[in-house]
Amino acid sequence: MSERAGWLDEREDEVWSAFFETQVLFWRRLAQQLQQETGLSEPDLAILQALLAASEGRLRPYQLSGVTQFEKSRLHHQLTRMAGRGLLTREPCADSGRGAVVTLTETGRAAVAAALPRRAAHIRRWLTDPLSSRQLDELQGISAALMAQLKGDEPAL
Amino acid sequence: MSERAGWLDEREDEVWSAFFETQVLFWRRLAQQLQQETGLSEPDLAILQALLAASEGRLRPYQLSGVTQFEKSRLHHQLTRMAGRGLLTREPCADSGRGAVVTLTETGRAAVAAALPRRAAHIRRWLTDPLSSRQLDELQGISAALMAQLKGDEPAL
Repeated sequence: MSERAGWLDEREDEVWSAFFETQVLFWRRLAQQLQQETGLSEPDLAILQALLAASEGRLRPYQLSGVTQFEKSRLHHQLTRMAGRGLLTREPCADSGRGAVVTLTETGRAAVAAALPRRAAHIRRWLTDPLSSRQLDELQGISAALMAQLKGDEPAL
Repeated sequence: MSERAGWLDEREDEVWSAFFETQVLFWRRLAQQLQQETGLSEPDLAILQALLAASEGRLRPYQLSGVTQFEKSRLHHQLTRMAGRGLLTREPCADSGRGAVVTLTETGRAAVAAALPRRAAHIRRWLTDPLSSRQLDELQGISAALMAQLKGDEPAL
């Protein structure tokens, strides 16, 4: 950790405040717009996308826990609600005879197929279109620098 | 909304993917580190900070709903847990004779006072220190451009 103690200096605080307020509004807007246009929440979309990318549209529940960062009982409730809406099924696992397997339904497949172009339009509207070509380059560099620090600190956790 | 339909082009997708992965890891790291070092979750900290900034450390529950974006029942459970840990009290409102008022306790005041310098250290570690002076300037410009677009779109929602 940084050895300097105490508060952010004026410059750090300015950058952080602008970053924080923008990020909160950005992610809130993306979530609201998705919900409004497709009826899907962010966890719904993340789970549907993970299933879409999986072999035969099937995953075990524990494989979905990293997608949502939900604790076990909250993930269970989330999957139950999604099954109730016909987006996926949750059945005992045929291979092992125990545990469960989550499978994307045709309804779920149609929902994620309809949502992804909407999400792409929202990303353009609120992330890439407002930025100049130079700012897009800078944002990539900034993301890479932050990611390197975050990844570099991982083993210490 | 943007008139272009369909998927992100390669450039847009690169920027979005790097941005998205970095943001997910950044906010997760901040939350984990705060929890580990102080025992506070992000909603705990947001509520304590709002109470600290309020006159006499008191707010009505509805005034806290914008801070967490929790729906009413989830906010109620959150405040109940925080009251159980002695961080705040929730009492009937003396002025109006109805509704409730949430008040920061000395324990809550001490918890937020201890957490804020930790949060500052985390911001330096994972946001400002990894970036060059030019990148900090660029990040402010990027935040301002995104915020302008987000705010400009608000009345249409």
